[in-house]
Amino acid sequence: MTTDPTDTSLIALAEALVEASGPIARRYFRTPLVIDDKNDDSPVTRADREAEAAMRRIIEAERPADGILGEEYGAVRTDADYVWVLDPIDGTRAFINGLPIFGTLVALTRHGSSILGIIDMPALGDRWTGAIGHPPRFTSAGNGEARPKVRPCAGLGAARLCSTTPDMFGGTDQTAFDRLTAAVRDTRYGTDCLAYGLVASGQTDLVVEAGMQPYDYLAQVPIIEGAGGVITDWQGQPLTLDSDGRVVAAGDAGVHAEALALLGNTAV
Amino acid sequence: MTTDPTDTSLIALAEALVEASGPIARRYFRTPLVIDDKNDDSPVTRADREAEAAMRRIIEAERPADGILGEEYGAVRTDADYVWVLDPIDGTRAFINGLPIFGTLVALTRHGSSILGIIDMPALGDRWTGAIGHPPRFTSAGNGEARPKVRPCAGLGAARLCSTTPDMFGGTDQTAFDRLTAAVRDTRYGTDCLAYGLVASGQTDLVVEAGMQPYDYLAQVPIIEGAGGVITDWQGQPLTLDSDGRVVAAGDAGVHAEALALLGNTAV
Repeated sequence: MTTDPTDTSLIALAEALVEASGPIARRYFRTPLVIDDKNDDSPVTRADREAEAAMRRIIEAERPADGILGEEYGAVRTDADYVWVLDPIDGTRAFINGLPIFGTLVALTRHGSSILGIIDMPALGDRWTGAIGHPPRFTSAGNGEARPKVRPCAGLGAARLCSTTPDMFGGTDQTAFDRLTAAVRDTRYGTDCLAYGLVASGQTDLVVEAGMQPYDYLAQVPIIEGAGGVITDWQGQPLTLDSDGRVVAAGDAGVHAEALALLGNTAV
Repeated sequence: MTTDPTDTSLIALAEALVEASGPIARRYFRTPLVIDDKNDDSPVTRADREAEAAMRRIIEAERPADGILGEEYGAVRTDADYVWVLDPIDGTRAFINGLPIFGTLVALTRHGSSILGIIDMPALGDRWTGAIGHPPRFTSAGNGEARPKVRPCAGLGAARLCSTTPDMFGGTDQTAFDRLTAAVRDTRYGTDCLAYGLVASGQTDLVVEAGMQPYDYLAQVPIIEGAGGVITDWQGQPLTLDSDGRVVAAGDAGVHAEALALLGNTAV
């Protein structure tokens, strides 16, 4: 686990990446699009590809020795000490339906651990930034800046749960997730990356998802942890480039532990 | 069916209502709240109640003979020719989790038919207005005004479906909805009233919901119909104050008919 404070020049570079990506996403948002389907049937837009290309150009110019792993254009130099992990439009399905609940996720890993992350919501103006050794930041267009902090929660029965879709859980994961939704106070779907920022800011309690790729979850780690929360895989292990894509994020450590216990019966 | 053009003073009054409601919703959004649960366990906030009270004060001052039906404060004079139907915060669960996908819905019925409706999204700046005999309007904070128009869709298999949550369907409705999700191109949850505006604007194709109250669906009728779409109950009947709370809205009439056919096996 890396504990050295993240160099501020890296934070500035991450901000430059989302500031390059955001205008591209906004330009295509709610315009008629030709949709390509990838082999996995996820919707992909020109906005996705152009935004990732813009971010990659900046990294190649500023930090040519760093690795890059992106949703659209794959991996280069992932054996480097530093690897940038990019999801230009997390929540492509939201984007395609005209819903502003999509975000750009940027993470930086050092020796495989996420040391810096940004959740940027281009259509909302919300941005969460987290980095090892720095307090997390939340900025909101027109509403200034705040320091995100998780809220306590009395237990799983009092917890509000967010998840993008119940369709993301297969097989026994579905059974485990059903146990969880039966145990929590309520469940809100359609939340994508925004829910993780809202956990960090103490607006909601719990996010449980599955089938995620490293570019879907690594940015959230320094944000949630910096705000006092807990984010791991379903076995309680730290999220890394090699995690299995199942994620539990909670503001309250007790709620996180209860959620793990309920989900844990599916451990293989 | 009323076909006389809606008096423009009524449209202006409806706009005044959402302009009174919106700032109240925004003031409470993402602030810590004490949540009351009503008997039906839906989350209710002070924002809900204050926003509805503000709208009722305006109606009582400007149109004291009209009826009012609101989510929070019930019904008065609903035997009047004109009845205002108010949902101060549609999407309370979104609101409570810090998600900006909540709206104020205002409808005006004349002899029971919805002749005027506004979907206003206070945290997004999006507003759709529809009224019999007038072109519908979409206004977006910072992005000007547009005339919403539905898009064609080749068929149910090509359609994007939006719905607030799969948990809103009980009994055989659940089976019917499962048939539908298996038939469409994809399904996005967590959409609340925003999805109806997006159908009107040609951003998505289909919304199917159930368990709704008149204040949840009447505002959408003049907007969807004005933009060229179709909105009915699950039997294809017009939505009125007395509908059973099951709603199908589509931009393309063929998709609407296909959806009805798939859902129709649950007709009682």
